[in-house]
Amino acid sequence: MSTAPAYEPEPAPTARVAIAFTTDAGERRVRVPSGVTLFDAASWNGIAIDSTCGGHGTCRKCKVRVVDGEVPVSRLDPRAFDPDELRAGWRLACMAPAERDVEVEVPPLVTRPKAATVGVGRQVILRPAVQKRVVELAEPTLTDQLSDLERLLAALDDLEPRVDLHALRKLPGVLRSSDFRVTAVLVDDVLVDVEPGDTTGRAFGIAFDLGTTTVVATLLDLVTGTPVAVGSMLNRQQPFGADVITRISATMLDPDALARLTAAAQATLDELAGEVCADAGVERREVYEIALAGNATMTALALGIDPEPLGVAPFVPATRTLPELRAADLGVVVHPGARATVFPALGAYVGGDVVAGMLASGMDRDKRVRLFVDVGTNCEIVLSDGDRLLATAAPAGPAFEGAAIRCGMRAAPGAIEAVAIVDDDVVLQVIGDVAPAGLCGSGLVDAVAALVDAGFVDASGRLVDAVAVHGSQPGLARRLVTVDGERVFLLDEATGTYLSQRDIRELQFAKAAIATGWRLLVEEAGLHAADVQQVLLAGSFGSFLSPGAAVRIGLVPALPVLRIVSAGNVAGEGAKMALLSLRERAGAQRLVEEVRYVELSDRPDFNDRFIDELAFPSPE
Amino acid sequence: MSTAPAYEPEPAPTARVAIAFTTDAGERRVRVPSGVTLFDAASWNGIAIDSTCGGHGTCRKCKVRVVDGEVPVSRLDPRAFDPDELRAGWRLACMAPAERDVEVEVPPLVTRPKAATVGVGRQVILRPAVQKRVVELAEPTLTDQLSDLERLLAALDDLEPRVDLHALRKLPGVLRSSDFRVTAVLVDDVLVDVEPGDTTGRAFGIAFDLGTTTVVATLLDLVTGTPVAVGSMLNRQQPFGADVITRISATMLDPDALARLTAAAQATLDELAGEVCADAGVERREVYEIALAGNATMTALALGIDPEPLGVAPFVPATRTLPELRAADLGVVVHPGARATVFPALGAYVGGDVVAGMLASGMDRDKRVRLFVDVGTNCEIVLSDGDRLLATAAPAGPAFEGAAIRCGMRAAPGAIEAVAIVDDDVVLQVIGDVAPAGLCGSGLVDAVAALVDAGFVDASGRLVDAVAVHGSQPGLARRLVTVDGERVFLLDEATGTYLSQRDIRELQFAKAAIATGWRLLVEEAGLHAADVQQVLLAGSFGSFLSPGAAVRIGLVPALPVLRIVSAGNVAGEGAKMALLSLRERAGAQRLVEEVRYVELSDRPDFNDRFIDELAFPSPE
Repeated sequence: MSTAPAYEPEPAPTARVAIAFTTDAGERRVRVPSGVTLFDAASWNGIAIDSTCGGHGTCRKCKVRVVDGEVPVSRLDPRAFDPDELRAGWRLACMAPAERDVEVEVPPLVTRPKAATVGVGRQVILRPAVQKRVVELAEPTLTDQLSDLERLLAALDDLEPRVDLHALRKLPGVLRSSDFRVTAVLVDDVLVDVEPGDTTGRAFGIAFDLGTTTVVATLLDLVTGTPVAVGSMLNRQQPFGADVITRISATMLDPDALARLTAAAQATLDELAGEVCADAGVERREVYEIALAGNATMTALALGIDPEPLGVAPFVPATRTLPELRAADLGVVVHPGARATVFPALGAYVGGDVVAGMLASGMDRDKRVRLFVDVGTNCEIVLSDGDRLLATAAPAGPAFEGAAIRCGMRAAPGAIEAVAIVDDDVVLQVIGDVAPAGLCGSGLVDAVAALVDAGFVDASGRLVDAVAVHGSQPGLARRLVTVDGERVFLLDEATGTYLSQRDIRELQFAKAAIATGWRLLVEEAGLHAADVQQVLLAGSFGSFLSPGAAVRIGLVPALPVLRIVSAGNVAGEGAKMALLSLRERAGAQRLVEEVRYVELSDRPDFNDRFIDELAFPSPE
Repeated sequence: MSTAPAYEPEPAPTARVAIAFTTDAGERRVRVPSGVTLFDAASWNGIAIDSTCGGHGTCRKCKVRVVDGEVPVSRLDPRAFDPDELRAGWRLACMAPAERDVEVEVPPLVTRPKAATVGVGRQVILRPAVQKRVVELAEPTLTDQLSDLERLLAALDDLEPRVDLHALRKLPGVLRSSDFRVTAVLVDDVLVDVEPGDTTGRAFGIAFDLGTTTVVATLLDLVTGTPVAVGSMLNRQQPFGADVITRISATMLDPDALARLTAAAQATLDELAGEVCADAGVERREVYEIALAGNATMTALALGIDPEPLGVAPFVPATRTLPELRAADLGVVVHPGARATVFPALGAYVGGDVVAGMLASGMDRDKRVRLFVDVGTNCEIVLSDGDRLLATAAPAGPAFEGAAIRCGMRAAPGAIEAVAIVDDDVVLQVIGDVAPAGLCGSGLVDAVAALVDAGFVDASGRLVDAVAVHGSQPGLARRLVTVDGERVFLLDEATGTYLSQRDIRELQFAKAAIATGWRLLVEEAGLHAADVQQVLLAGSFGSFLSPGAAVRIGLVPALPVLRIVSAGNVAGEGAKMALLSLRERAGAQRLVEEVRYVELSDRPDFNDRFIDELAFPSPE
């Protein structure tokens, strides 16, 4: 007989919510942190909602209908809908926070936007590198023997493209099979194809977020700027090790490992490309460009560049800016002339994923003092004082990935993702609504924060004595037990899932590394922690952290939780922006030149500062 | 019992001679038209002789020793050699015409020239697109975390190269395995490789002359500017047809034929690349660039470009100027980053081979009125009046290739290559000193010229009646016989090899097409035939034509024979120049822009003029 609490748990304030979107393409179920707007939730997951203002509540085009579940009426909704509509569930998606599970109907797109909304509320004017032009040419005669290519280029006289051999090979046949009415396909300044007739309605790109663990691909319609399919899978490099260091080590131990790691990464990318194309009914040859954001090691491995110098001091990348590349260089089989744009890196430990994230979150376009924290094994931190940008990397270790944690696991079904202490009991939220099997990163932070708040973990990180708390909180106190000689706190009595004293130490170590990082950056900029006006929690892990818990354990500055923003998959969003806008792509390059990298590992005061940060903040 | 003349034939004035060159690399036997200098004979065949003046007799470096056979002492030899040396056979190669078979010793090269002699006496300052630079870089530290590529490029700060992925892949490993002392390899503005240590002494290129029949490859040492190996073979496209039209037709009849023709051309190029590298002990990866000159059809087929529009009115090429290409695009496996420079074409029937020939013969750099005639199935004609350049193409038909000629054959062993009438007999020169098996193009022209001269063919092209000539020339008259109902002239009574009345008509047709071409060009320039100061006979066939015979039948203007110059394989020479000098390469591009193409096929007076040209000129 189970001793599990026999109640329907109230959603914890830091939980995820499930949203079911119904579009004309069918139903999609997604999970996002509670409080994210319906508009962002859709955007992150590649579901297109009409909008021209970029989610700022001004265009009033992002109308959706909540058909099940509750979403409060925002101050702008009455201007967009009449009372009957409001009663029927109509809301502006950009103003509608998802605080509970909901089902939402998304009307078909009515506009072909000239702009797209991506990133953290970024509005991007559509100007992709991929361009199509229909041209109608005069047929050659004996008195007009201009070559086919010169004839075509004369009709594109505002451009002076370079020409791919592939396009030239097809040119004579395509011109003559289509009465000299063709569509020229350009990627940036390269003519990559000539297609018969008018194909301007079809042009696609794939944005890849190449993570060490998970790889996400978004297929974008480059004509409308909307995502049409999203896919994700585990990076096939997993068998070589969970983190970048083990993968770099693999290449140092085995001369064949680099080639195999490259093949594994490329197979992952190509499989996802096939998947998103199939999902959306798009042919691979209609994809003319791909964009990729990844950390420096993932990027190097995907391109077959020796990563060894990234892993040993002085931590030097082969290059910060990648040369002109083709999709084929990344093993992605799409259009044979398709180009690849790969995000530049700042350094070995602030990679293209972070640059993409900075772009997506507009780090260089906001006058506020903002802190960008991509939480992971290697934690990247960027500070903007509204003018200058400083970046650093902090080695947080594997705690957030669930490694080195006794009951740790990845954020998969069975993982405790949120923990709250309510009255004298523990409330868990488990992914997949199954029995808890372990603790993922956000659950770990939540659990420790809750125990610190309840007085069960003191400022030094020590689990208190059960006797001291038994009188006031007997339900909790009985969970303080010993497992294999180590003191633990039982999170789930039925399954025995627990948080151990050593787990708390691991988290202390990780959060101290991160806090040392942002504190030193803030000082470097001549500021104080209190000057920080917004914190963006980024990355597939950071986005799911509870802002309150992050503040409670001192992982981020003590801001009101509303100013701690889950930024979502900002690397993927940056990759999308690069496909949608040459201007934004240039912005990424500018970021690399503008951001100053601050190396922390050689600072003499680093260790002292680190030790200071190990403690948890006292309650206010 | 043979009835062949039992004499050692005197060399005919239009013969080829055999030269045996002995160098420190061994012996090479070559055959060239009589009268070509030893210097040119060596140069055409990839044998390096010291020279800094380009064969003009001023540097006196091209010293060779004639060890067997006779070469007259030139006016400059006494200034370069003492009497003992002259007696020992020492000559300046550039002043020494090979008029008989000779054996020549070539001393080892003593200078590394800054200039190379190529083409028709062209002196080319060495400035290849391939550049190597040794750089020694500071090793990175925690306070100098510049990326590997930025570190390298900073040391090449006069260049701003684009970077090949291949070079980037190797960079981290090569820098660290060679203590940061490396050689950067650039082709034009692309960094194609980074090699450990100092490899500046080794850089090679291959110049290809891609003929419809024969393909020639010359391996050039780009450091010294000297050819180090030459190879040639039949184009593997032969089974698809002997000329460009049959190969174009093949692609129109069979959708797979283009791919197979491309594969055949590329296999030919790659096999030759392997051969010349093996001959010279050069590794394929030391070849960083290739250059290719071919007619428009051969170029299109080698690149996989649909050639159909080249073969049907209005005769339009896919492009005149080729885009940036890699050696791999031509199927040539050399350095993985090797580039290919392919000669641009003027039009469908004045291809890259002619542009290369114009470059090699300096058509745009001479104040004289010059006519360039590349004799072949399609005959390309260029006229320079010292200022402007006009070009056209004349469809000469296959007579010169030996096709449509009763006893016709290619210039291979057994082919009669020269014919002279001496007293009342016929003197033949047969390739390979074997019994005559047929008549090649130069033999055909010689035979007809000799018979016109002897009064056996009248101005209208008719073989005269045997009775009319029997009295004065009985030995010749008895050769006028009938074969299969057709009147013929027996060239060799033993084997029955003959010239038929129809053969003469075929040649008349061909020479009339060519003569109409150059006459109309000369008129177009406001000149007369008598204004022409030099005729360059180009191409593998034209170079072996007897100038006297060409004048006699009216193929070229009636100039003194010394002003009718065998220009050798000018297409191949042009390809070499493109490898040796970026300036000359730019010159080829300029030629395409400067030369005006004159289309003859749509001129109303073309047919009348053509009929006028069918007759042979009257003896002067």
